[in-house]
This record gives sequence, C-alpha cells and structure tokens, in this order.
Amino acid sequence: MICENLSVREDGQLLFAGQDTAALAAAYGTPLYLMDEDRIRERCRTYREAVETAFDGRGRVLYASKAACFKRMYGIMQEEGLYVDVVSPGEIATARSAGFPMERVYYHSSHKSDEDIAYAMEAGVGCFIVDNTEELLAAECEAARRGITQAIVLRLTPGIDPHTYEAVATGKVDSKFGFAIETGAAEAVTRLALEQPHLKLEGFHCHVGSQVFDSDVFLQSVDCMLAYMVHVRDTYGYTAAFLDLGGGYGVRYVESDPTIDIAENIAQVGAYVKAQAAALGYPMPEVAFEPGRSIVADAGLTLYTVSSLKQIEGYKNYVAIDGGMTDNPRFALYGAPYTVVAASKLNEPATLTCSVVGRCCESGDIIQENVPMPPSIARGDLVAVMTTGAYNYSMASNYNRVPRPPVVMLRGGESYVAVRRETLADIVALDN
Amino acid sequence: MICENLSVREDGQLLFAGQDTAALAAAYGTPLYLMDEDRIRERCRTYREAVETAFDGRGRVLYASKAACFKRMYGIMQEEGLYVDVVSPGEIATARSAGFPMERVYYHSSHKSDEDIAYAMEAGVGCFIVDNTEELLAAECEAARRGITQAIVLRLTPGIDPHTYEAVATGKVDSKFGFAIETGAAEAVTRLALEQPHLKLEGFHCHVGSQVFDSDVFLQSVDCMLAYMVHVRDTYGYTAAFLDLGGGYGVRYVESDPTIDIAENIAQVGAYVKAQAAALGYPMPEVAFEPGRSIVADAGLTLYTVSSLKQIEGYKNYVAIDGGMTDNPRFALYGAPYTVVAASKLNEPATLTCSVVGRCCESGDIIQENVPMPPSIARGDLVAVMTTGAYNYSMASNYNRVPRPPVVMLRGGESYVAVRRETLADIVALDN
Repeated sequence: MICENLSVREDGQLLFAGQDTAALAAAYGTPLYLMDEDRIRERCRTYREAVETAFDGRGRVLYASKAACFKRMYGIMQEEGLYVDVVSPGEIATARSAGFPMERVYYHSSHKSDEDIAYAMEAGVGCFIVDNTEELLAAECEAARRGITQAIVLRLTPGIDPHTYEAVATGKVDSKFGFAIETGAAEAVTRLALEQPHLKLEGFHCHVGSQVFDSDVFLQSVDCMLAYMVHVRDTYGYTAAFLDLGGGYGVRYVESDPTIDIAENIAQVGAYVKAQAAALGYPMPEVAFEPGRSIVADAGLTLYTVSSLKQIEGYKNYVAIDGGMTDNPRFALYGAPYTVVAASKLNEPATLTCSVVGRCCESGDIIQENVPMPPSIARGDLVAVMTTGAYNYSMASNYNRVPRPPVVMLRGGESYVAVRRETLADIVALDN
Repeated sequence: MICENLSVREDGQLLFAGQDTAALAAAYGTPLYLMDEDRIRERCRTYREAVETAFDGRGRVLYASKAACFKRMYGIMQEEGLYVDVVSPGEIATARSAGFPMERVYYHSSHKSDEDIAYAMEAGVGCFIVDNTEELLAAECEAARRGITQAIVLRLTPGIDPHTYEAVATGKVDSKFGFAIETGAAEAVTRLALEQPHLKLEGFHCHVGSQVFDSDVFLQSVDCMLAYMVHVRDTYGYTAAFLDLGGGYGVRYVESDPTIDIAENIAQVGAYVKAQAAALGYPMPEVAFEPGRSIVADAGLTLYTVSSLKQIEGYKNYVAIDGGMTDNPRFALYGAPYTVVAASKLNEPATLTCSVVGRCCESGDIIQENVPMPPSIARGDLVAVMTTGAYNYSMASNYNRVPRPPVVMLRGGESYVAVRRETLADIVALDN
C-alpha cells in the first residue's frame, strides 16, 4: 500500500491505522476525513530528531499549518515540541484557541494588512517572515506604536526552479513571494530592515517548491543563501544567525511516487550546511525546515459513499460519490493524482476503469480519472481516497451549499472528533 | 464598461449601481462582494417576460441557485415570480429559510443519497430532476414509504458539444450527468420511470453547457429532445408535457466577450420549438430555462485592498490583494478571464502590466494575469473585479483560514448585508 498505516483484512476491508474503515464510516457518516494521529506524531518525531541530529540541537521544525489547520493540530504540535508557521490571523486565532505558545509561531504570507500585523503583534507572534517592503514598513510602524521590538526574518527567492508544476513553484525569481537575490531586491530590503529600530532581523528564509523529490534542491538553496549571507556580512557587517530552508519534501500519492528518507535527507543537508559554512568561514546558523504536507498527507484518508455507477458504453464509467471538489479540490485545481479504492471490496479484482466523480453540479468535479474498481461497485459502497491529510480539509468549500465533513482523529485504536461535521443550520448561519 | 451598471466618476472613482465603491469599501471593509439587486431583478424580468412571450405564457424560468445561493436570493426570486433549481439539501434548506414555496423547486444533482431524497420529499420539493437509475429507484422507494406521488423529470444527454471548455461541457454523451439518448440509456430509464407507481414523469431535461454564446446549441437541443419525445410517444404512448432546456447563456467577463440579447434568443427558441412541434405533430410542451450565471454574474463586483506592489525587473509585476482564490477560485480552477481595475484611479493611465495575486500561500492564487494598472498603484488602494456575481461567493473557501467576505446588496441607492462577514470566531467554531 501507499503508506504503512494502511492494510487489508482477509474479507477485503480496508483498515486505516489498524481500524475498520467501514465501522468508522458507520459511526461518523460520510464523507469523512480520517487523520491518523499516531502517524502525525511519528512524522513530527522523525523531523524533529533528524533536525536535532543534523544540526547538533540547533535546528527547528516548523509545522506549516496551512496543510491542515484546526485547533487539535496545534495541541499535537505543542506536545511534539514543534514550532509552527501560520499564514493568516485565522491560523493565529486557531493556534491561540489551542493555547499554543505564541513565541513559537512564525507568521508567513505575502499579504499582511495593517490590521493583520496589529492582530499578530497583539497575539505575541514570535517572528514575522517578511515578504515585501510595504509589510516591513507597516510592521516597523506597528511595533513602534506598541513600543516593542519584533523579530523578523526576510523571505528571499533564490532563483531555483524545483522542476515541479507551475502553481507550487515558488523559489524562482519570478514569484509573488519574497525578494529576489538576483535583482538586488533582497539586498535593498536587508539594508532597510537593518535600519528599522523596532525590528530585529533574525535571518533569512527561502522556499523553493512543493512536492520536491530532488534532494539537490535544498543543497542548491543552501549554496545561494549562504553566499548571500556571506555577502551581507562582508558588506554590512550583519551576521545572520538563522536560516529557514522552507518545506517541500514530497509525499507518495500513487505507487509510482518515490519514497523519501527524511532523516537521511536532512542529515545530508546538515552535513552540507556545516561543510559550506566552514568553507566560507561563516558561523553555523540555526537551520529551520517547514514541513506541512509531509507531516500530515499520508496521515489522512477520506471515506465516501457511492451513490451511482454510470456505465456509458463505448465511453466511460462514472462512480458518483457523496463528496468531491468541495472536500478535495486538488484534482479540479491541479489534476493531482490520488490512489482511490473500493474500501470494502479489496478482495475483488478491480477490472472496471472508472472516473470517480463528485456530487457538485459541475463536470470538472472529479476526484480521480482511470481508477480501477471492482465491477460490483454499487450504491452504498464505500470509497477510500488515500493521502488526503494535506490540503483537503484546509481547502474545503461549501460549493453547492454542501456541508464540510468532520475530521476524526485515530489514536491508539480509538477515535475522536477534532472538527465536527457542518450542519444545514451552519450553512445558513451567516445569511440575513 | 463591461456592464451598464458600471460607471466612472469625474475623479476616477468607480461607481457600481450608481454607488461609490470606495465609500462601500470604507463602510463594509474588504474583501467585499457587492451584488446589484436592481440588476438581478432586471435580469429576472428579462428572462421571465421573454419566456412568457416566446411560449405563450407556458414557459418557466428556473434560477440555478448554485451560481449564487444565500437566503436573500430566494426572496428575490419569489418576488420576481421565478422557479428555482437546487442541487443539494443545503440549497433546499436555504430556500426554506427564506420561505420560498417548495412546489416551485426543482431538485437537480447527479448525487442524491437516500437521506438527501428523504430530506427533499419531507420539505415538499416540487420536482426531482432524476440523474441516474439508482436515484430513480431510491426516489420511488421513499415516495412509496411516504405514500406520496413525486413529480420527476429525467435528465438526458443529447450528445451535443457546446464548443466550450471541458470542465463545463455537460451535454456530450460522455458525461457524469444524465442518461445518453444515443446509447439507449435514456429509453431504458424512461420505460423504468413510467413503471414506477409513486413517481409521475413530467418530461425531460437537458443541459448542454455553460458560457454558451452560440444560440444554435439550444436549437440543436430542441431537435434532439423533440425527436426523442416523439419516439417515446410513438413507442410507449407517453406524451411529455414538459421540456427543460437547461441554462448556459454566456455573460461578458471581458470586453472581447460578445453580448447576448436574451429576449431575442429565447424568442428564436420559442419560434423553433413551436415550428418543430407542429411539424412533428407533437403537442407544444411547457418549456423551461435554467439561467444562473446570466442572472447574477454582472450583478456582482468584488472589492479588494492592495497590500503590496512587487516589481521584479525583467520579469513581472505583482499586485497583492487581501482576497484571492478563497473568494474567487475561478482563475485557479479554469484560468477564467476577469476585468480588473484600480477602482479609485480610473483617471490615471493604466500602463503597468501586473499579475493581481491573492493572499494565500500558494503561487497559483491568482485573480488575473496581464492586468493594466496605473503605475501609482500602492498599498491601501482599492481593486475591483467585475462580473463576480456567479460562482464566487458560492465557491468560496476558508483556505489559509481566511474568513469569507460578506455579500452586500445594492438597491435603489441603498445597501444592506445579505450575508454577514465571517469572523475569526466562526473560523474555529467547529474545532474541538
């Protein structure tokens, strides 16, 4: 299977985190987001231990909240000793509601309004990752007004093409994010940041892309960023003590995706940073990683109920389910691959090629094309979509006024509701 | 301008429905969905009068709720004498909350669970538009259990390619929607429907596509559908009294889009149906249209506030705004075109080509590429996106935990809140 927390019982029933998916569907209804808490914790530990080892206890792991953001996630991150990155007041509010320590929060985003900045400083967010000049000046202004010194990091674009698809390729020079090193924008803002009396520049950030399987990309980032840091030190006398390399390690959506050994990969990056820093005579910075998807993706699985099988002779077969682009818009947005199975019929040969389509009145509401299904698939059957822990719940909508599914966590053979199911009353609650 | 409810004041300020967009932004905050109620009513009347005239008082206009669904819309539709089509219990619940008469509701969707069917029958929904055999049998079962006779219409796919883009091309034989005439599926289900004791077949439905500018497509549908209806009458002795031709008339998103004269178009369809029905010796059916987008699209406008202008020499210019794919995912989903302007600087030459990008931490969060902007565009300036009345609010998400904007209606020079702004408290309300 795609991930080791998946298995199949003798009768063909899919088990997730050792639990019977049919029993979970019966208990909580469908569509249903399941999250394997034990797997999330295991991934947190893998990252934390890898970073501690690779950087001699001077590394940080920031969970990129946007992958899956709800109150319970911050409780888990706190218990696992991670930092978090957030991208909006909504994510800050969620972290606060969980009592997550604000000094361990890094605030990303290429958009921060004056109100957003005030909200984050009021909350006591540890560090702003500054994306643009307007934000830098607004943050200085707000910090001055409050009489505080706000820690910041500058987001730079090192100009590396991660060879992934356009929509998530963020490290190239042409990006809505950050300051390009190549054009001089990075240097100009660094100078400006160092002049601000109420901002304390901690270091630099870069993020090259998502679903990166090429470990080379991080080493290239290190080269670019260290060269820049040396230049800044030599020119302005400022030595950055912090280097955030962003996230981006890929996860397995389908069998053909490679597996990444995170510990080995980070060890390689650690060795490289040490060697390069030594070679350049630069003091070893504290290094951060921002995994999001690779912490939660394969800890997630979505269950649906089939409502019809439509076999159009000479054309296609359509399996219609009770969810779709409302709870997982990633096929509609990117044509993203997923592994999809008939969760209670895994001992039947999957010889019928189907499009698994969603409930919305929109032809593009597709979960996946060319899915092998058992020919007996029928109304009432369960369908499971694997590796949905990242960017599914967090991107969900109420299109067609469909209520969003609950998030049910699985832990040590038990289950509990982390986000409750939306009701029809919730759906009309904001309507006057 | 794109639509006649837009104008520019002498000082370069954009007016919408005659109202100052800067004043509305100041009063309600941004991002802000504005909806011109007078324009919505005008479009309703255009459709209703056109259909009444073209079909001698025996036509129906069904507002396709999914384009923009919230309580107030149903109040307007009721006052304007329209029927509505809904696609989910959530839309039914919304119509109910507005006191919309349930007998005027047509229930679409290629997914209807047993619970959905029971909910709709309990609510007293006038007519089910049946999409698949499983639904037909489940509806019969539920109607029998309740001891009622449920009116139904069968959704057929006439096999016409509307020459629009794939994701909204729904009338081809290969479709997740309905029963193909060409393959015999339509005939089989018609036979089955006529045998069900608790279902009353009223007629047939087809929907060929969206953003259709080719009037020909509706005439082709009439040919296909009437030929099928004649065949059914001759073979099974069943004469359908109702023909629903679906929606699909296009709207103008950009200046290069053509204008459609709805009244003239529908008159043409009316004349054609009469002529063909007469030629085929078929009694003139009641004919329905399902406009959604073309009722509400140009009644909508979204206002944003700029947070930064990023000019990357030799590459692109980025204008970052306080909304994005969370309130309008249509560029991210389809590369949909929109007309975008600096709402308070329309007397300045727009000589700077920019990408207008959203606040989400995602490179694909783009509202529009290649937008001409005044070079003075800066933090705090207003940006307006036209023609956002359809499929913007209805597709909105909380990605990045961004609260959804309010919907403010404009009517006779006044304004009022139809959907209130989401708060940070709303954002965490379902989290345990």
